[in-house]
Amino acid sequence: MTLTRADCAALDEADPLAAFRDEFVLPEGVIYLVGNSLGAMPRGAAARVARTVEDEWGRELVGGWNTAGWYAQPLTTGDRLAPLIGAGPGQVVVGNSTSIAVFQAVAAALRLRPGRRVIVSDVANFPTDRYVVEGLATLLGGYEIRPFEAPLTDEVAAVLLSEVDYRTGARHDVGQVTARVQAAGALMIWDLCHSVGALPVDVSQADFALGCTYKYLNGGPGAPAFLYVNPRHQAAAENVLTGWYAHAEPFAFEPGFRPADGIRRFAVSTPHVLSFAGLEAALDIWDRVDMQAVRAKSIALTSLFIDLLAPIETLRLATPRDPARRGSQVSFHHADGYPVMRALIDRGVHGDFRAPDILRFGFAPLYLRHVDVFDAAATLTDVLSKDLWRAEKYTHRLPVT
Amino acid sequence: MTLTRADCAALDEADPLAAFRDEFVLPEGVIYLVGNSLGAMPRGAAARVARTVEDEWGRELVGGWNTAGWYAQPLTTGDRLAPLIGAGPGQVVVGNSTSIAVFQAVAAALRLRPGRRVIVSDVANFPTDRYVVEGLATLLGGYEIRPFEAPLTDEVAAVLLSEVDYRTGARHDVGQVTARVQAAGALMIWDLCHSVGALPVDVSQADFALGCTYKYLNGGPGAPAFLYVNPRHQAAAENVLTGWYAHAEPFAFEPGFRPADGIRRFAVSTPHVLSFAGLEAALDIWDRVDMQAVRAKSIALTSLFIDLLAPIETLRLATPRDPARRGSQVSFHHADGYPVMRALIDRGVHGDFRAPDILRFGFAPLYLRHVDVFDAAATLTDVLSKDLWRAEKYTHRLPVT
Repeated sequence: MTLTRADCAALDEADPLAAFRDEFVLPEGVIYLVGNSLGAMPRGAAARVARTVEDEWGRELVGGWNTAGWYAQPLTTGDRLAPLIGAGPGQVVVGNSTSIAVFQAVAAALRLRPGRRVIVSDVANFPTDRYVVEGLATLLGGYEIRPFEAPLTDEVAAVLLSEVDYRTGARHDVGQVTARVQAAGALMIWDLCHSVGALPVDVSQADFALGCTYKYLNGGPGAPAFLYVNPRHQAAAENVLTGWYAHAEPFAFEPGFRPADGIRRFAVSTPHVLSFAGLEAALDIWDRVDMQAVRAKSIALTSLFIDLLAPIETLRLATPRDPARRGSQVSFHHADGYPVMRALIDRGVHGDFRAPDILRFGFAPLYLRHVDVFDAAATLTDVLSKDLWRAEKYTHRLPVT
Repeated sequence: MTLTRADCAALDEADPLAAFRDEFVLPEGVIYLVGNSLGAMPRGAAARVARTVEDEWGRELVGGWNTAGWYAQPLTTGDRLAPLIGAGPGQVVVGNSTSIAVFQAVAAALRLRPGRRVIVSDVANFPTDRYVVEGLATLLGGYEIRPFEAPLTDEVAAVLLSEVDYRTGARHDVGQVTARVQAAGALMIWDLCHSVGALPVDVSQADFALGCTYKYLNGGPGAPAFLYVNPRHQAAAENVLTGWYAHAEPFAFEPGFRPADGIRRFAVSTPHVLSFAGLEAALDIWDRVDMQAVRAKSIALTSLFIDLLAPIETLRLATPRDPARRGSQVSFHHADGYPVMRALIDRGVHGDFRAPDILRFGFAPLYLRHVDVFDAAATLTDVLSKDLWRAEKYTHRLPVT
């Protein structure tokens, strides 16, 4: 039995997360289903960033490294983020980008498994993960990259996987995969870009994990990435990007490199302080969020969207029907996905298109309502059933950017 | 003949750069001689960053990648910065950090000189440069690091040097050193952290160059770094940090890595957009600056400071007396440099201390006046001649941060 709009409104009334919607800025007339690409702006971000610019940089100048806490930021922000991925204090460092964190994690894993010369990196991984692994393998020489389907032989040093597939939204069983990989003597590295903030994450058994903070976490465009290193590896694991921030005493300006103890060993360089400020504004919200409630609402919203669109025959669901097997995302194959998405955006429903034929919708439980999902499905139904996407203004290709 | 304060005021009256001072926010009662560590805030930064947060992120959301130009930012900001280092369009990419840029440049140079197994990295280099080279050599294996004094044999693949020494302010002759290194068949990589924005820089003969933008360029704490790749290397040079931004078609999400043509090959990852906004505000000023005028004023200010302090016997000049051989910085050795600097800062003159005994002062010609230099020298003279630094509150060590 499919829900009516009134049913949806009633669910929104009863939603324990409903109050969070007011903490985000959402443009009038837009249903934003791209929070899995760039999350909406926390209402507090403008003031938080302005404080960093005007009060900290402007007034404290170089003193801000101490007085405003910039120096410690990679670790203090890491500690704030840690609970969102099932990690504890001193296990997460924030900074740089996902690509850099992938490079650090995979390089560290290879050095911990020197006899093994295979890296497993799924084709379902986000491209940057695959590209970075490819670049690292070329740099080091003598390494082979195999897909996830390959047997876990004793040649495998490390497995790098996305918990949630960026195209289909399919979710791995983190506990099961981690156990299987580790049983084969390899190290498990999780990419959490499409799961952190979307569902409760538990990296406590993983060897390394990493992700960005600008999707479901709402940290802002290009907000810094994070890297988790399991405490059992922190003494032995090497950060190959040995910038000054990773040094035991950065301000001693010693001639040679001496790694810091603990997670700071994986810091690289001066934090991008203004970009950190956006993330801090987001964490001001996340500090108060119950991730179990987020997951329950995410499942409700994605299930609703799937159910409402089930009658449309030209949409082929790319996302697992079993809620346990998906993230907070619903994707459909549609042969004309590109013009369909443009027609949809033109009507205020923002999703995105991923070549060759994927319509992708992200569901951010903190600011999306059941009625938004109902309206989005109704608009997509309209666009498809009335062939609205066939208009020339949608079918001509825009320049790629 | 030493100048009087009235002479200094007259020089400020005639200063062609005088109007720029109003474009920066300078705290009341502070003479800021740490612009070589973190430059003062451009007055336009608050509005520029607020625009990026509120108008771009807040209203455009993911659309900002196109409408606000975020996607192209690493190259468009690179092109804006290029003239400041003597480079042309399509030669500079902005993003990440100095440490990452060092890693990219040195790794690329080593791959262009595969038979050579020596990296020259001076001990006078900024520590992060030396640490990163050390980490890279360890990662690759089979490389040896030698100091600048070592002969340039045919084993040397690359030489990494800072144009201006971060401690002493001594400046290399870029043209002469570059020619000598290249004549030996090695590649020349310049670190411009302490020269860009301080003096006219010319990298046109260099193979690679890099630097940060938060010192003399005033881009803000943790503002993105830049990397220059000489056009003659752009087709062959490899970026070993093959993040998605370096791909020929980032949004095609192809399975394998295919490097972009031109300088974009050296982009790595999603730009830190909020941190870029601070740098853009600074470039709004730099676009209008005559670097020859900056150099002339820099020499005048540093010479004045040296002259005014010449009578103080306990200060031993660490910076070359010949203006051509120094950057925009003056350093002195003083056995009790730590308490001396604290006593000075307590009196509103902000410089910094570098272990073991360096008092370091940076001179940012856009916002410092001759009278500021006069007053700073008078305060330092006072602190030393009256033994003000011997007070217990200065001599006890603060915790290192």
